[in-house]
Amino acid sequence: MKITRRDFSRMVGLGTGAQWLPRIPFVAQDRRIGYCIVGLGRISMQHFMPAVKMSNKSRITAVVSGHRDKAERMAAEYGVPSGSIYNYENYDEIAKNPDIDAVYIALPNSMHADYSIRAAKARKHVLCEKPMATSVEQSRAMIQACESARRKLMIAYRCQYEPANLRAVQLIREGKLGSIQSIESAFGFPIAPNEWRLDKKLSGGGPLVDVGIYCLNACRYLTGAEPSGVKGFSSVVDQDGRFAQVEETLSWTMEFPGGALASCTCTYGSPMPGYFRVRGSRGTVIVEPAFNYDKLHLLAQFEDGQTLELAPDDPDPTQFLREADHMADCILQNKEPKTSGQEGLRDMVLISQIYRSCERTSRVPARMQSRDNLDNVRGVVVANRVHSAPDSG
Amino acid sequence: MKITRRDFSRMVGLGTGAQWLPRIPFVAQDRRIGYCIVGLGRISMQHFMPAVKMSNKSRITAVVSGHRDKAERMAAEYGVPSGSIYNYENYDEIAKNPDIDAVYIALPNSMHADYSIRAAKARKHVLCEKPMATSVEQSRAMIQACESARRKLMIAYRCQYEPANLRAVQLIREGKLGSIQSIESAFGFPIAPNEWRLDKKLSGGGPLVDVGIYCLNACRYLTGAEPSGVKGFSSVVDQDGRFAQVEETLSWTMEFPGGALASCTCTYGSPMPGYFRVRGSRGTVIVEPAFNYDKLHLLAQFEDGQTLELAPDDPDPTQFLREADHMADCILQNKEPKTSGQEGLRDMVLISQIYRSCERTSRVPARMQSRDNLDNVRGVVVANRVHSAPDSG
Repeated sequence: MKITRRDFSRMVGLGTGAQWLPRIPFVAQDRRIGYCIVGLGRISMQHFMPAVKMSNKSRITAVVSGHRDKAERMAAEYGVPSGSIYNYENYDEIAKNPDIDAVYIALPNSMHADYSIRAAKARKHVLCEKPMATSVEQSRAMIQACESARRKLMIAYRCQYEPANLRAVQLIREGKLGSIQSIESAFGFPIAPNEWRLDKKLSGGGPLVDVGIYCLNACRYLTGAEPSGVKGFSSVVDQDGRFAQVEETLSWTMEFPGGALASCTCTYGSPMPGYFRVRGSRGTVIVEPAFNYDKLHLLAQFEDGQTLELAPDDPDPTQFLREADHMADCILQNKEPKTSGQEGLRDMVLISQIYRSCERTSRVPARMQSRDNLDNVRGVVVANRVHSAPDSG
Repeated sequence: MKITRRDFSRMVGLGTGAQWLPRIPFVAQDRRIGYCIVGLGRISMQHFMPAVKMSNKSRITAVVSGHRDKAERMAAEYGVPSGSIYNYENYDEIAKNPDIDAVYIALPNSMHADYSIRAAKARKHVLCEKPMATSVEQSRAMIQACESARRKLMIAYRCQYEPANLRAVQLIREGKLGSIQSIESAFGFPIAPNEWRLDKKLSGGGPLVDVGIYCLNACRYLTGAEPSGVKGFSSVVDQDGRFAQVEETLSWTMEFPGGALASCTCTYGSPMPGYFRVRGSRGTVIVEPAFNYDKLHLLAQFEDGQTLELAPDDPDPTQFLREADHMADCILQNKEPKTSGQEGLRDMVLISQIYRSCERTSRVPARMQSRDNLDNVRGVVVANRVHSAPDSG
């Protein structure tokens, strides 16, 4: 009996074969994982697909798009046969295509769960962009669908495969910064009107789910811990029609077991290059920009006066390449992805808790907001103490 | 009848004379305001006193210290007669010294109220370091004592007299940044054991009252508004005995009327040069460092690609000089100080609200803190929704 690489992979995935085959990593140099790209937008066409082109573990074998001309152009560029071009009507036919091992879902957030679950039913592994879905319930359904089909589910947290971010994590784990006190992180950009991200049915939320999730996820991989509490405020400053459905700006704090605190801000209202700053008792590491596609920059300063600087590569496409290859490795070696569905679910739960905290106001009594009326502060404070417990942070 | 400058000042202060004298600014080139320095520590000896030496509106005319030798050394340096050297036992005798117009209180926080109120009773104007006191009640008592004595009360918020901070405020007021979305600000340093700041009876609190107050005050002068809500977390990471009485690190968020949000962190556990970053729809202004004694640096970036940079003066002692001279101007011209007792009181009220918010936990259910146990997230979320209202932010 000759077992091909693909047969083996399937048998392991189905739970057959794994019992009687030795559990050694199966390093297959003879073939690459075939990705079906679902959604031809900027992140697919400008970042993920060019990175896969550089890979010796992954390749593009199919595309799904509502625009046939764009799909054909991409297919030609990546050597995808015309029979492997799909649209949103015939998407489920990917099940019949043996050249597709995995899908890469780069659609509006509200479509992530449906297209991931259908991919799992088609027995394809799933690499899904973040946020993984628009609700905790959808996220759980995605995890269950992939578990039932014994397919991998990985969330495309590209920064967890990016060298400067990984170096920051390494410095912390090695104790180079001493005890971690705090993290400051922010990410934002001024959004154009009519972006799908402003439609809550498509996005599931505002900047928190889109860019704030980078700060949230960074605080978790930097500390290596899960927040024990979250508190925040959300707001709309610009009453220009863009923010009828989602917040414009959101700031929140988090506490971690052991006492590290995080303070984060995200916005659709102003330019705000993503960054994080980790403060420890014996040093600081600043990655700024931290979440861009390239030209990231790390500066660490230690108590002995030493510094470490990682200057930007220009360009640095390795984060998408490493992400695609990690997924390929997980499929080929039957490993759980580092950024699994569970990892995505944790962020979804925290996002829902941050939003819930924002709904709870912690108001300074109106009398005290005026610059002219602080005469009776003692009375106000006493009143606040009595009445504020249910709605104060 | 010849009215000397000093007589006039006293008459105005006492409420006599002001009725029948024309209310024109009285610019006295013939004399300088005499300061009695109360507390000879670093900020007095290394910053305030050298700045006053450069002034043509202010001078040092007396000192109060528990260390006679240090007091005599300072007196010699600043031309203070030995009869104008006081200690903490005979402090109230400053009432009899006509060369003292005002006191500069640079004592541990818990002594601010007592020494300010006694100065007012001695009919001296008061310039008091921040935080103005260790409680809202003390702050109100200081304001009332100075009002009753018709003396000025100014809190030494030196950054409100510092050129880079003022330029940031000006850019915002002129609309150069568009609508303000958010402010990030932080300030901290690793504290040595046995500092008086770690004794809550002397300090009234941890880094929030000492360095966090810079961030808090900055958010208020940058927005020109009062926060409508505050939420925060405080913590102790280093269990090394330093933080038995006060927090080590505190992060908090604030919302302002109109929707601007602030996100701040302060710490005694790690180096954290003070800064703020103001994000507007049309530009950003970053002052970093923002709260140091010198070498401040401002960088503004506007949507048209223009930038504005204020490079550091080396050294820049003007913030203390401007602060001392503003107090002198207020005394000479009978004006309310820009950073009055009311300004200090607002911060004290907000500090007490931030501390109160920190006492209210907003916990993620313990089951969800483990990286291994997210199996029943839906159940946890539902439970949290039902039970968390009273203690969630």
